[in-house]
Amino acid sequence: MSSQYSPLIDELIEALRCLPGVGPKSAQRMSFQLLERNRSGGARLAKALEAAIDKVGHCRSCRTLTELDECLVCANPKRDRRTICVVESPADVLAFEQSGDYRGVYFVLMGHLSPIDGIGPAEIGIDLLVERVKALAVEELILATNPTVEGEATAYYISEQMRQLGVAVSRIAHGVPLGGELEYVDAGTLAHALKGRQRFE
Amino acid sequence: MSSQYSPLIDELIEALRCLPGVGPKSAQRMSFQLLERNRSGGARLAKALEAAIDKVGHCRSCRTLTELDECLVCANPKRDRRTICVVESPADVLAFEQSGDYRGVYFVLMGHLSPIDGIGPAEIGIDLLVERVKALAVEELILATNPTVEGEATAYYISEQMRQLGVAVSRIAHGVPLGGELEYVDAGTLAHALKGRQRFE
Repeated sequence: MSSQYSPLIDELIEALRCLPGVGPKSAQRMSFQLLERNRSGGARLAKALEAAIDKVGHCRSCRTLTELDECLVCANPKRDRRTICVVESPADVLAFEQSGDYRGVYFVLMGHLSPIDGIGPAEIGIDLLVERVKALAVEELILATNPTVEGEATAYYISEQMRQLGVAVSRIAHGVPLGGELEYVDAGTLAHALKGRQRFE
Repeated sequence: MSSQYSPLIDELIEALRCLPGVGPKSAQRMSFQLLERNRSGGARLAKALEAAIDKVGHCRSCRTLTELDECLVCANPKRDRRTICVVESPADVLAFEQSGDYRGVYFVLMGHLSPIDGIGPAEIGIDLLVERVKALAVEELILATNPTVEGEATAYYISEQMRQLGVAVSRIAHGVPLGGELEYVDAGTLAHALKGRQRFE
């Protein structure tokens, strides 16, 4: 596709395609936009990429992505350490943080159980989770893995482990999203919403 | 929006937003995707950005973006130097090159006439264009500026200049795009297509 335009611009277009959702046309548009109108933004992006790739690792307490030894949530003394919310990825942490309502801490699996791909309990850090639950005297573990087959299986596995430790385990509610219209909600979600109905008071 | 997640990741998310069409959510998704699954792609992108921003300038003959003194099209001895296609941006050059049909050379205005923004003939390189037309003994100048008010005004201005030099000037055809359905084509384009009709042979 990228005809022999200029080696450096061709390489920039090709490199931009590593971004999710960026096809050949958007990559072209991005390249020209940066080179024609926003070189300082491009330079800033190059620096930010280098710094993040070089320095970002995992939080030693919750496994999320961070360049610090312990992430800002885990290190915040105001967070409630007796509640742990278990999520699959760092983006989920960000989503909860942006909702602004949660005051506990997190544990990031960095994936979900998937025996076919060789991803077992060790790979998603169950040892560390068990250790943390014991160390922090956790009272409630909220399972917020994705509502997919793998996410549900992972949630089930973790709940079994926690039962042995005597920790209360809950699962976030699944149902009709706020602001959505019923007729556009898929059948599985509707069935779930019906099954999970609560008394109206 | 980007809550205090981690300074380096926050900065990466913010920096990605300089890309056209990338909002806060896509920037987040891109950041995590790169950090979790494609650090080598991210490193490659950082290098490509730095190299392109540092080295890419303008072709001395046609003003397009290139890191070379003269771009690959201008430097190609097989291209027909007696035909010049005038376009607004380097992306237009790429579009024509990908169509694969054009064998002449280009001249890139890097914009269009826009007196309100202080963009006059000097800013879009008319001097260099006139000089080139004389030096190459150009036979035909194809005006391929965008079919917008500014693009049309720019095309008109250039055609006036060329008339004084005795060069044949043409404008690319505007009409119904191939593969399009008539009912979805806007009124302006349809009117243009009707006015520009040609005898069916």
